[in-house]
Amino acid sequence: MTKALDALSEILLMGPGPSMVNEAVYKAMGKHLVGHMDPEFIAVMDDIKGQLRQLCGTANEVTMPMSGTGSAGMETCYVNLVEHGDKVLVLHNGVFSGRMIDVATRLGAQVDVLEFPWGTPVLVPKVKEKLAGGKYAIVAVIHAETSTGVCNPVEEIGKLVREHGALYLVDGVTSLGGIEVALDRWGVDAFYSGTQKCLSCPPGLSPVSFSPRAIEKIKARKSKVPNWYLDMNMIMQYWEGANRTYHHTAPVSMNYALNAALALILDEGPEKVHARHKAMHDMFVKGVEALGFSMFVEKPYRLPMLNLVTCPAGVDEAALRKALRTKHNIEVGGGLGPLAGKVIRIGIMGETAREANVQRLLDALAKETGR
Amino acid sequence: MTKALDALSEILLMGPGPSMVNEAVYKAMGKHLVGHMDPEFIAVMDDIKGQLRQLCGTANEVTMPMSGTGSAGMETCYVNLVEHGDKVLVLHNGVFSGRMIDVATRLGAQVDVLEFPWGTPVLVPKVKEKLAGGKYAIVAVIHAETSTGVCNPVEEIGKLVREHGALYLVDGVTSLGGIEVALDRWGVDAFYSGTQKCLSCPPGLSPVSFSPRAIEKIKARKSKVPNWYLDMNMIMQYWEGANRTYHHTAPVSMNYALNAALALILDEGPEKVHARHKAMHDMFVKGVEALGFSMFVEKPYRLPMLNLVTCPAGVDEAALRKALRTKHNIEVGGGLGPLAGKVIRIGIMGETAREANVQRLLDALAKETGR
Repeated sequence: MTKALDALSEILLMGPGPSMVNEAVYKAMGKHLVGHMDPEFIAVMDDIKGQLRQLCGTANEVTMPMSGTGSAGMETCYVNLVEHGDKVLVLHNGVFSGRMIDVATRLGAQVDVLEFPWGTPVLVPKVKEKLAGGKYAIVAVIHAETSTGVCNPVEEIGKLVREHGALYLVDGVTSLGGIEVALDRWGVDAFYSGTQKCLSCPPGLSPVSFSPRAIEKIKARKSKVPNWYLDMNMIMQYWEGANRTYHHTAPVSMNYALNAALALILDEGPEKVHARHKAMHDMFVKGVEALGFSMFVEKPYRLPMLNLVTCPAGVDEAALRKALRTKHNIEVGGGLGPLAGKVIRIGIMGETAREANVQRLLDALAKETGR
Repeated sequence: MTKALDALSEILLMGPGPSMVNEAVYKAMGKHLVGHMDPEFIAVMDDIKGQLRQLCGTANEVTMPMSGTGSAGMETCYVNLVEHGDKVLVLHNGVFSGRMIDVATRLGAQVDVLEFPWGTPVLVPKVKEKLAGGKYAIVAVIHAETSTGVCNPVEEIGKLVREHGALYLVDGVTSLGGIEVALDRWGVDAFYSGTQKCLSCPPGLSPVSFSPRAIEKIKARKSKVPNWYLDMNMIMQYWEGANRTYHHTAPVSMNYALNAALALILDEGPEKVHARHKAMHDMFVKGVEALGFSMFVEKPYRLPMLNLVTCPAGVDEAALRKALRTKHNIEVGGGLGPLAGKVIRIGIMGETAREANVQRLLDALAKETGR
């Protein structure tokens, strides 16, 4: 061990991720390595694919974790689907849809943006209007926007996108495991998530899923995917089929952890896990409002797992966050972009979504604000 | 736990990676997470940077692990340094320099290839001749070619590249931790490695290092790096300086593991670790030749940590590898590309490079070949 490792504190993780990790997941991650081409590892890979399909509500054959964190999943979807000059519509209401604009633009897409105020959801009629005025190859949206705490109406948007004929790209980094994800019912063509939010697994992998329509587009590309590491054509040959072909050395331990984390969710039952997130969110909202904090997002659009609060008058948000971390060993998040200094972001994700954790945070908030 | 995880065997990893992992590294990896922006995690990041500088023989400020496996390191070097139309010379004598050609071509580089037979090293006079006939922005070579077991003369090539004025890109995936790496003395401008070879850490991170000259080129780019996830301009703001800016959620647990793995090497002393690799290689060669196997690479160019052997007459290499894995729980690797079916690749890397492991493999080989 190093001094830096010895100095690590036990933190209650209630920021925008990573979330708390179950001991069974840590234990799985620490299992001794087998090779990345070993039949025993391939059995783990296959099990993860089945687990992800179940949790994502999809029969997509190409459903697997990419060997990078959530942002690598975003990169994967765009770099495989975008060819130079493709028209992409990004529905923009937070940091992560802003990132989508940057990612797609770098890849030579013609990006069109339909913007909504931060803290409010994408409005379906506006999307309908926008789609009527152009022809898009891809329409993209964030399901659970981590920077604002807003849930976007992915199912309703999906109907419009399907009628329009575009591919539908959805970011589920923060939603998967915390609220329902139903890729096939919603008509999603490309989806990515992260392990360190509601899946309650350490960061390091990004589950993705591609519909047969998306795979068709990838296979019909005129140019090679301009990213060897994330090229699905090759990665499919490692993750699918009878003869696995070496592409890169998968992060074996991270896959062990993900396999165990997904098993915990599926064993508890996704509906029950979602209900637990909702119950802990309700408990949090009731408690935090009683302390004089306000919820930043209107009730109908609020995410259960990512809560933005504004402080009572006279309470400095930066000082409060610092006190939570240094005096109570609780991590919460600050605001991003235009919300920096204005809100606190509180994650109640996965294993964090337990009564004892929410109560500990509420008690600490009460103490630090003198209520 | 899942059935797939419960079924994992204890394997002696003597393939081309991953290698064996010390219990202290598994323990570090299992430490409870703190946030990726937490001062305590930033202390781990800073410690890793210092450790990597020491092991890589460099004062490069920009020395850090990328959040992907070794191939992500290759992608990082090319995507940041190559602008459309740049002339790149790849010194090609194996699978991984072949991968370089693919990666650079996808990014719009004009790639020129100087080829040498597999199993033989890059010849310095040929490089000199080639450089005299063109003007290159980047010259790239693999230090330890994992597909052939050959060590390329990176120091001598470095002198020529510096005279030529190109940036010098070196792959150290398999070399770092097993033989000397001296980036500053060799004049290397961009370097990447992997964690799962001689660093004896699970796969999942790719240490990289960029010289001030390389950083200058990256900062002076006319176009944005066409890869958001691996853009060094942004990643430097997360890994460097007084105010760290969020870019992506780093794989926290993998960084804990790397911090611990590097500490083990630096505590033992890199020279001693290199000498241990050499001693275990010598023991292996002596033993395996006595059993009738032949070393594929001529002695002066052999890597200590990656050994290609051809089987004695009458021994089927695929059947032998299968017997080692199923009857002895030992993983070794098959040949890649044109060497498939012709050689066995035996890794003696990091924690694997211990007498008991080499002896166990030699005993199993003796038993299976009836010697």
